[in-house]
Amino acid sequence: MPQLVLIRHGQSQWNLENRFTGWWDVDLSDQGVAEARAAGALLRERGFEFDRCFTSVLTRAIRTLHLVLHELDSLWLPVAKDWHLNERHYGGLTGLNKQEMIDKVGAEQVKTWRRSYDIPPPPLPSDSPYDVSTDRRYNGIPVPVTESLKDTIARALPYYELEIVPALRRDERVLVAAHGNSIRGIIKHLSKIGDDEIVGVEIPTGQPLVYELNEDLSVRESYYLSERAA
Amino acid sequence: MPQLVLIRHGQSQWNLENRFTGWWDVDLSDQGVAEARAAGALLRERGFEFDRCFTSVLTRAIRTLHLVLHELDSLWLPVAKDWHLNERHYGGLTGLNKQEMIDKVGAEQVKTWRRSYDIPPPPLPSDSPYDVSTDRRYNGIPVPVTESLKDTIARALPYYELEIVPALRRDERVLVAAHGNSIRGIIKHLSKIGDDEIVGVEIPTGQPLVYELNEDLSVRESYYLSERAA
Repeated sequence: MPQLVLIRHGQSQWNLENRFTGWWDVDLSDQGVAEARAAGALLRERGFEFDRCFTSVLTRAIRTLHLVLHELDSLWLPVAKDWHLNERHYGGLTGLNKQEMIDKVGAEQVKTWRRSYDIPPPPLPSDSPYDVSTDRRYNGIPVPVTESLKDTIARALPYYELEIVPALRRDERVLVAAHGNSIRGIIKHLSKIGDDEIVGVEIPTGQPLVYELNEDLSVRESYYLSERAA
Repeated sequence: MPQLVLIRHGQSQWNLENRFTGWWDVDLSDQGVAEARAAGALLRERGFEFDRCFTSVLTRAIRTLHLVLHELDSLWLPVAKDWHLNERHYGGLTGLNKQEMIDKVGAEQVKTWRRSYDIPPPPLPSDSPYDVSTDRRYNGIPVPVTESLKDTIARALPYYELEIVPALRRDERVLVAAHGNSIRGIIKHLSKIGDDEIVGVEIPTGQPLVYELNEDLSVRESYYLSERAA
């Protein structure tokens, strides 16, 4: 039976500082490295093996994947890296911490952005130090200036359908190391979660989320591995 | 102009113990990790960038590549992993250290194997603890039971021609993290080194070897980056 394991990257330096990160390429914190290793060790202890891996083009997700695969003695597995699995682009919020944002736009506006499925934050100013549109990893790619959660899912989910589903249909065991919002997109689809509800679904860092699938790729069961008895 | 950088993996645990490793999947030693990071830092200081990477399916080469790419902030680059770039399969010598080998077969025989281009060691016994033929990473692959240097080059060089040369012809800057003998194959071809001479060419661990190429992929110059003034 096909099996899909999703893992949000371990804690990054900006998770620690409570800053909006998005497409800015922040590395894992020491705790994030430890979380990724622990996730790999847990998967190994529970006998998980994989056939194929997917990740974003952001360092924190790629390193999480590599640390997990090292624990699994599986660094040799094929890994596809693609911007469609990147975190949501937070536009003008990028680099701000939660308090700075409240100071800047007020608590009501912050609440609206946080609770909204389809309202994007303001665009990233073109003179922002966090503009990545000229980063060569995005050559030829339409780098957004901001995204709502809906926008993020609108590019993550077609990638899932086009690249990950065919592997699952071949009965491969797939590991995806990605980000809170690109993973929300996949979860929303698989677990049939509504627009309003998905906004509030929290994805913890560095926790393998297991989807046991039926042959038609409907969900047999899903669970965080750490919450399941050995 | 196309550019090719070759790097032999950093010191492995068995390099340290002076044991024949071949296809046995030994990890980097702490020194090997440090060598790989230093190689990445050197490449960064000298302004190197890459477009595409190739490595073997052995942990010590893959981790070397990842450590180099992390230093270069380039973990997002596409990486192809293929057994054709694996180390030479040392057959029945796998796991032995140099002294054990001399005790077992005599100094003359050891000298013959070490100096020979086309004489393989005896095959790996089928009951050897170092038999990797059932490892799932080699599913569908004709795992050798031993290889001469000639045998290793006979599978590494076609891979170079089929997968790496097309990238170089697109003017891509290519990084290959591999092993002493698969790298010998590429060097032998590019630098037109004879059968007898290539046997004696030593490739140091963790040292970027730069090939500046002409458009027709002939060699303009080649050098170890650490031996070149900044």
